[in-house]
Amino acid sequence: MEIAGPAAMPPTTTHVSIRRITDESASDVEDQLAVEAPLEIVVVARAAHAAHVDSARPSALQERAPRRLGITMRTPGNDRELAIGLLFAEGIISRPADVVDVDELSGPSGDLVRVALAEDVTVDLGRSERALAVANASCGVCGKASIDVASCAPPAPLARGVPRIAPRVVHGLAARLRGAQPVFGRTGGLHAAALFDAGGALADLREDVGRHNAVDKLIGAALLAGRLPDPGAVLMVSGRAGFELVQKALRASLPVMVAVGAPSSLAAELAAAHGMTLVGFARDGRFNVYAGRERIAALAETAS
Amino acid sequence: MEIAGPAAMPPTTTHVSIRRITDESASDVEDQLAVEAPLEIVVVARAAHAAHVDSARPSALQERAPRRLGITMRTPGNDRELAIGLLFAEGIISRPADVVDVDELSGPSGDLVRVALAEDVTVDLGRSERALAVANASCGVCGKASIDVASCAPPAPLARGVPRIAPRVVHGLAARLRGAQPVFGRTGGLHAAALFDAGGALADLREDVGRHNAVDKLIGAALLAGRLPDPGAVLMVSGRAGFELVQKALRASLPVMVAVGAPSSLAAELAAAHGMTLVGFARDGRFNVYAGRERIAALAETAS
Repeated sequence: MEIAGPAAMPPTTTHVSIRRITDESASDVEDQLAVEAPLEIVVVARAAHAAHVDSARPSALQERAPRRLGITMRTPGNDRELAIGLLFAEGIISRPADVVDVDELSGPSGDLVRVALAEDVTVDLGRSERALAVANASCGVCGKASIDVASCAPPAPLARGVPRIAPRVVHGLAARLRGAQPVFGRTGGLHAAALFDAGGALADLREDVGRHNAVDKLIGAALLAGRLPDPGAVLMVSGRAGFELVQKALRASLPVMVAVGAPSSLAAELAAAHGMTLVGFARDGRFNVYAGRERIAALAETAS
Repeated sequence: MEIAGPAAMPPTTTHVSIRRITDESASDVEDQLAVEAPLEIVVVARAAHAAHVDSARPSALQERAPRRLGITMRTPGNDRELAIGLLFAEGIISRPADVVDVDELSGPSGDLVRVALAEDVTVDLGRSERALAVANASCGVCGKASIDVASCAPPAPLARGVPRIAPRVVHGLAARLRGAQPVFGRTGGLHAAALFDAGGALADLREDVGRHNAVDKLIGAALLAGRLPDPGAVLMVSGRAGFELVQKALRASLPVMVAVGAPSSLAAELAAAHGMTLVGFARDGRFNVYAGRERIAALAETAS
């Protein structure tokens, strides 16, 4: 499946006239803002959930029709990857073959991505509508009656002790992430998510005003390119690591996640439960290992 | 309605054993993490949306029964305020009298807040389920076919030019916000939202691992205490200002929002459309005014 490259991307920032006030002066200047705009996601698939089908039209159960999953706020660009990453994170699709076609359309209500799924893929509409909401929530909204850490397991157990990463590689990741972001992103206006190899070489990077979107775009691109699972990959995120980001990384079988910011209690718990390595506060020549320390080379001898 | 004070709060942080790596050393230390845990919200009210009622039981339309709105991930503490703030932000309730009772319960699936609404308040279940998801999404998920900036209007137009705030007050807000956060929050592990008066005096502050939750807790507390609308209030947030945070501020008729971080394009557009003052990057002796500059005293003469 073809993925649009940077040349085809719409602008991710916009210029506005603002008033800038310092202790000593006030001036009218041009400023750049990260663009935030709605994207509608429509899936063409069979519905699996009878309860959500109009009882007056039982044949709807068998229809393979476009169904609106929801609207997400995002920074334009890599919209097809974002849609695929969202559907993957929520378990609606599991492999590139589940997707027949991905189209970017422009309708009266704004940008739209339409994903046509394979004949054998069914969509539980009730679950998916909620799931799409979940997928993009930084603070998280869960469709389940409780957070079941066990149910967030990766498709197959992560290989123990692989990859092995030198501390100096981890120390260098934050600077490499910043260096690879376009100028505006480096100012903190856009979150970034990137995949590195265990030697610290950058494989891919995506940006978005929402940190969950950046991860969905990155994982969606990797899935479409057939690069998942990748047992040697390291996921780096520019912000904090909450429960849902760890969930997305596990779903993609990524063994290592490094965050510039703080993890939450539940993020650390989830990573530990599934043998994933979770590193936080990776900046300024230090980092903290919250789970899976056996993958950090110098620490392997003290692995718990 | 009684609101639990700080003494009754569960811990917002938890201690974990981690490995801390610097350029020169590696050591096992105790670290603090912000607690992230699920909260279930149940509403006792009439359902208004026939399409979501089982057609075999038409009497369900008239039932006033507990209905599960969803689960949100949050930092424990001020859970009743969070639930009320969420219901208010989504338009399910509009004033303290709409709420009969708010209970914190502990069930087999974790923490739960049950909100009993007044007899004349009906809940559109289809809309609300989606709404709850929306309410807590940092990147946002909208239940509408497009973002209709006009539909996000405050209940009544904001008073023009009120309050009038001196630039020196804005300069001081970030430090006051940090100073008022408990030690852990100051390290950046918890987001904060606070209400100040136009002279820079702190009225109230709430913290959460999710910045939307912090705002919902703050506004929920103000609503329960009968302090809304407050035409003289200034809302300050520790992070960035996205579309949804501006939406929440408008719903509460707050005339001024000041963010330590960057606003998004849509946030600035929404604030401008409804005459709200939006300030970003308020730190280190400077700030940028993105909308409503007539409320910043020294700028009033250049108001557009």
